[in-house]
Amino acid sequence: MAGNSFGESFKITTFGESHGAAVGVIVDGVTPGVDIDEQYIQIQMDRRKPGQSTVTSPRKEYDIVNILSGTFEGKTTGTPLFIILYNKDMRPEAYDDIKHSFRPGHADFTYLEKYGIRDHRGSGRASGRETAGRVAAGAVARKMLERRGVSILAYTKEIGGIECRDYVEQAIETNPVRACDPEAALKMVEKIEALAAIGDSCGGIVECRIRGVKSGLGEPVFDKMDADLAKAMLSIGAVKGIEFGAGFAASKMLGSEHNDQMKAGHFITNHSGGMIGGISTGEEIVFRVAIKPTSSISVPQQTVNQNGEDHIIVTKGRHDPCICPRIVPVVEAMACLVIEDHYKRQAATHY
Amino acid sequence: MAGNSFGESFKITTFGESHGAAVGVIVDGVTPGVDIDEQYIQIQMDRRKPGQSTVTSPRKEYDIVNILSGTFEGKTTGTPLFIILYNKDMRPEAYDDIKHSFRPGHADFTYLEKYGIRDHRGSGRASGRETAGRVAAGAVARKMLERRGVSILAYTKEIGGIECRDYVEQAIETNPVRACDPEAALKMVEKIEALAAIGDSCGGIVECRIRGVKSGLGEPVFDKMDADLAKAMLSIGAVKGIEFGAGFAASKMLGSEHNDQMKAGHFITNHSGGMIGGISTGEEIVFRVAIKPTSSISVPQQTVNQNGEDHIIVTKGRHDPCICPRIVPVVEAMACLVIEDHYKRQAATHY
Amino acid sequence: MAGNSFGESFKITTFGESHGAAVGVIVDGVTPGVDIDEQYIQIQMDRRKPGQSTVTSPRKEYDIVNILSGTFEGKTTGTPLFIILYNKDMRPEAYDDIKHSFRPGHADFTYLEKYGIRDHRGSGRASGRETAGRVAAGAVARKMLERRGVSILAYTKEIGGIECRDYVEQAIETNPVRACDPEAALKMVEKIEALAAIGDSCGGIVECRIRGVKSGLGEPVFDKMDADLAKAMLSIGAVKGIEFGAGFAASKMLGSEHNDQMKAGHFITNHSGGMIGGISTGEEIVFRVAIKPTSSISVPQQTVNQNGEDHIIVTKGRHDPCICPRIVPVVEAMACLVIEDHYKRQAATHY
Amino acid sequence: MAGNSFGESFKITTFGESHGAAVGVIVDGVTPGVDIDEQYIQIQMDRRKPGQSTVTSPRKEYDIVNILSGTFEGKTTGTPLFIILYNKDMRPEAYDDIKHSFRPGHADFTYLEKYGIRDHRGSGRASGRETAGRVAAGAVARKMLERRGVSILAYTKEIGGIECRDYVEQAIETNPVRACDPEAALKMVEKIEALAAIGDSCGGIVECRIRGVKSGLGEPVFDKMDADLAKAMLSIGAVKGIEFGAGFAASKMLGSEHNDQMKAGHFITNHSGGMIGGISTGEEIVFRVAIKPTSSISVPQQTVNQNGEDHIIVTKGRHDPCICPRIVPVVEAMACLVIEDHYKRQAATHY
Repeated sequence: MAGNSFGESFKITTFGESHGAAVGVIVDGVTPGVDIDEQYIQIQMDRRKPGQSTVTSPRKEYDIVNILSGTFEGKTTGTPLFIILYNKDMRPEAYDDIKHSFRPGHADFTYLEKYGIRDHRGSGRASGRETAGRVAAGAVARKMLERRGVSILAYTKEIGGIECRDYVEQAIETNPVRACDPEAALKMVEKIEALAAIGDSCGGIVECRIRGVKSGLGEPVFDKMDADLAKAMLSIGAVKGIEFGAGFAASKMLGSEHNDQMKAGHFITNHSGGMIGGISTGEEIVFRVAIKPTSSISVPQQTVNQNGEDHIIVTKGRHDPCICPRIVPVVEAMACLVIEDHYKRQAATHY
Repeated sequence: MAGNSFGESFKITTFGESHGAAVGVIVDGVTPGVDIDEQYIQIQMDRRKPGQSTVTSPRKEYDIVNILSGTFEGKTTGTPLFIILYNKDMRPEAYDDIKHSFRPGHADFTYLEKYGIRDHRGSGRASGRETAGRVAAGAVARKMLERRGVSILAYTKEIGGIECRDYVEQAIETNPVRACDPEAALKMVEKIEALAAIGDSCGGIVECRIRGVKSGLGEPVFDKMDADLAKAMLSIGAVKGIEFGAGFAASKMLGSEHNDQMKAGHFITNHSGGMIGGISTGEEIVFRVAIKPTSSISVPQQTVNQNGEDHIIVTKGRHDPCICPRIVPVVEAMACLVIEDHYKRQAATHY
Repeated sequence: MAGNSFGESFKITTFGESHGAAVGVIVDGVTPGVDIDEQYIQIQMDRRKPGQSTVTSPRKEYDIVNILSGTFEGKTTGTPLFIILYNKDMRPEAYDDIKHSFRPGHADFTYLEKYGIRDHRGSGRASGRETAGRVAAGAVARKMLERRGVSILAYTKEIGGIECRDYVEQAIETNPVRACDPEAALKMVEKIEALAAIGDSCGGIVECRIRGVKSGLGEPVFDKMDADLAKAMLSIGAVKGIEFGAGFAASKMLGSEHNDQMKAGHFITNHSGGMIGGISTGEEIVFRVAIKPTSSISVPQQTVNQNGEDHIIVTKGRHDPCICPRIVPVVEAMACLVIEDHYKRQAATHY
Repeated sequence: MAGNSFGESFKITTFGESHGAAVGVIVDGVTPGVDIDEQYIQIQMDRRKPGQSTVTSPRKEYDIVNILSGTFEGKTTGTPLFIILYNKDMRPEAYDDIKHSFRPGHADFTYLEKYGIRDHRGSGRASGRETAGRVAAGAVARKMLERRGVSILAYTKEIGGIECRDYVEQAIETNPVRACDPEAALKMVEKIEALAAIGDSCGGIVECRIRGVKSGLGEPVFDKMDADLAKAMLSIGAVKGIEFGAGFAASKMLGSEHNDQMKAGHFITNHSGGMIGGISTGEEIVFRVAIKPTSSISVPQQTVNQNGEDHIIVTKGRHDPCICPRIVPVVEAMACLVIEDHYKRQAATHY
């Protein structure tokens, strides 16, 4: 297949370009009889949308959720749920000067190499706009996970080298960078604003915690739950790495330190990050993803055009100097999709 | 599906337990007319096998490659290639004392939670032995990639906190830890031997470089080449994280630093690690994986048994105090599978 | 997966209910750079729509094709093509009296058994309306097959027991039942009108011929081209059987009669129907499908309601007394999808 | 994928050529904790093997079932079940004279067209021998279906134009053609022996009845249970057609005759063959498949060789003059796979 579907038993297929008519998603494998409405999904869409604060892009995407199939009288029917978000506020002409040139850090060059044709307007299919369909589908999965007692929470752990030292869960959604440390959040905002002023950008680290997943989920050998989470996260354009539990630090630990010993029926530590052998332990699932600095900057950069000629490019437009706060709901959405899929897949195991 | 298959157009399905009769793999989607023989595959198998040096397990797995279908007169026919490795030197009775107990760091607990039954002998399906089939299949993919001018090379970058500072490619296969720095290799061996003496273990970092991949490979949106590589690597039991190009360090860089600018038709830097938007740039593909310390240690540890009773466990048996040197060929094999699959998938794009 | 996708390398996913807001399809795996526009697809949609003649349902579905993604400046980009058809002329209240009752021949009972909930309005997802998305996607495949020199042609072979005796290709689209024999067509129309007058319905046989498919397409063992065509056809609600080449008559032939002998580089006969061992021979692909009589009739019938009470039901509404003429473009569309998919899959074989 | 896998949640992948070292199958998605042993599977293998009577091929395939993984202490573990059948009694030299020539009715020509290379020995992968793996896997599915109260029964309905008029279930396995009518069976045997004497062959019709399938199984839209059964059956080399319930006869019925009306909570008739809208009704599932006459005949036939030269061919070797009796267990096996897969897929629906 051509790569626009994700999941096995709970499966999504997305479509849409940044400056096309719409983006959207078909969700297949939805449990029938679940209460779902556009308002519930809209809450997640609003967390992803631009223009939420001074540190996010001022574009207004008007991500209005429309469910066009798969529900009846407010309940899912088990048939495909189709959600569409019509694009608005498109300014394709803003991209005329990059029509024949490749922006550094963007997929302009690679899309042309792959397809021999590209929709240059706002990165086309490679735009972050594509994640809107994922967030909508993720909200559907989240609804089902709520029924199972599972909660998914992501937040900014580090931005531009500024690390969170404290963990205050209730502070996360109340600061513009979605950091778990309100003091660090202030410095992050300062840093982002300073970079925005000079047209530059920065990256960061986003952490995700999933609670309430029962033990025994995940498919050996290739479809380990962590393998599927890794794929899910790396499928987000800005993500450059992922680590579970102790992660890269595990490479410096001794076996006697890293092994999660058990006592009184539970694990004493959780260095594994909630999965061993790709199967959930029942402990909290924890992972971190590395986010690269936003590619769109107005600092002059060297590039080539489609004729192979060198030149200097300055990316204009309305962009996020740091994508972390807006990527948090995307990370959560993808995590929801993976976990719900594995719940459904596990259903077949013992049946 | 239940998770024992990997790939789309070039697809493998594996079977087998550590102490069962055999492990093996069906490779589906092999290009017809390619010269392949057991000797070629055996070379890779021998790199994975235990007992290669003082730092690897003294077990003798006798990984003799048998091709039972899919070739005719020394050439592939396009039908499924079936490779089987009969198990020998099995000592299932060595595992009698863990029959009802969960070894820390192992998937004993999670498999029982998932299936309600487990083959406790040497971790059963969760054993590193399972990777033998992957390495055999990876050798088939490697053969096809050679024809495309693609080379795949992995090596130890760090073990037990000792980092390689130099990069000497020809030294890699000549030291027992497959490190790229011969001086560091000496220290690593010392460290491993010291840990082995006290029954403990350590982890490390393995890096992989893939050269010669043409630009334009990889499927947006979910089947990005880096997403598929991430899944492939995290499907290896001991891997706890992955990063591409600048990786986690990218999270501390500015956009103006991280963006790979272009000049004279090529990229000036390769912070992206050879893929942008999930599609190959034509530059070297580079990633690193974090390897956890071997779970099997003879240091006494706390655990519970199947009745929920606390007790102390000491894992006996013949184990690698550091799995890095033997995981190198597994990392390469999985990388081969992903790259070959994307070559074949790309074939359909323009057809 | 939950069954709303079809194809491997050229893959469609559909959504939508009969009386919901819209039906549509995501087509993934479209070759980039192909000229495609809504007008081209509309031609096929118009062949499927109701109200084309006195023998088809007078409902007006207004199947206006809207492409919302996957093209740029009139050409496909290789990203998912999304086609939506907004529903109009919906009269859900017309179905109020079947809200709690099961219409004989319809999937009312089975959907409720499967999902525990059903959208009773016009059969919901089980409606023939669902095939609109297939026809739109099939038109995309047809466009690509035209470039390969492949033509797909289906037509009515028999209706209500009246068989076509002649084969006049140019007559097919000029008679209201799409029969290949203009004289038989007249009798078929008479028969259908007579049945319509008494509120009854009839079935028939549709034949399909595919020309220009090169030899060597089709995947052994399970994805034989005829196996995939069989699945495609049986996935159409009204189809109850399929036969290839000599078909059921082959069961009465001798091997010496049925075997297609070769001479001067080609096959002397084509009893196999263009495929042997599931792979195309290069001869015309020929198959026939059995169409059941339309389930919706106004003749009183016995049924039960959701409380298990027996009662008499009379299905009202605007229905086709014989679905053959409108199923012809659906058969063609599904055949296009299978053939295009196998062309793309074959691309990977030798790559 | 390259077509050697079948099923979604209960999935098989087969390998092996007629005159290679072995044939076999990996069964993925097996419910853990089920008692299974080689003897149980052997029973089905013995029903498929040649040399059972005067009407089947005298070849001895020695289909000895070996389970090499996936069970532990007599129970399934949930990991892949691997079954291998080593080939014996191979006489590849018997095929030397067809090395460069195409046997009519066989896939010799099409395999060469597809792959550019072929294993000519006994049809290689296209041999009926390939079905041995299917029958082994089908026995595993049958074991699980037994637990669900489902029974699968196929039998010969017609051979060489001789139809069964009576239905005596207990007679099926007691006559050499597995016909449901003992009198017809006698005539069938006579007919087959007469044809064998002159080196010719004949086909027939096999019917299958599946009882005890609960209502509500099957996935709309593309993975209807009948669509999956159709694909399963057409994937058997000798099958040229399939019909469900009333089948092709439905095309001559009126809606008022064909619709299955309901009374007292069940269906009065079963013209639909146990599925409506692709979902099981709870009634008996009934279908018939058309079997072509065996391609291997010793009657002289016209053909071409690989150089395109016309010549006369006489197929030697040990072949079944009518494959119906041996295809019966293959039909049952494929039906078991489809039904078990849909039980498992349904498990995910409501989970």
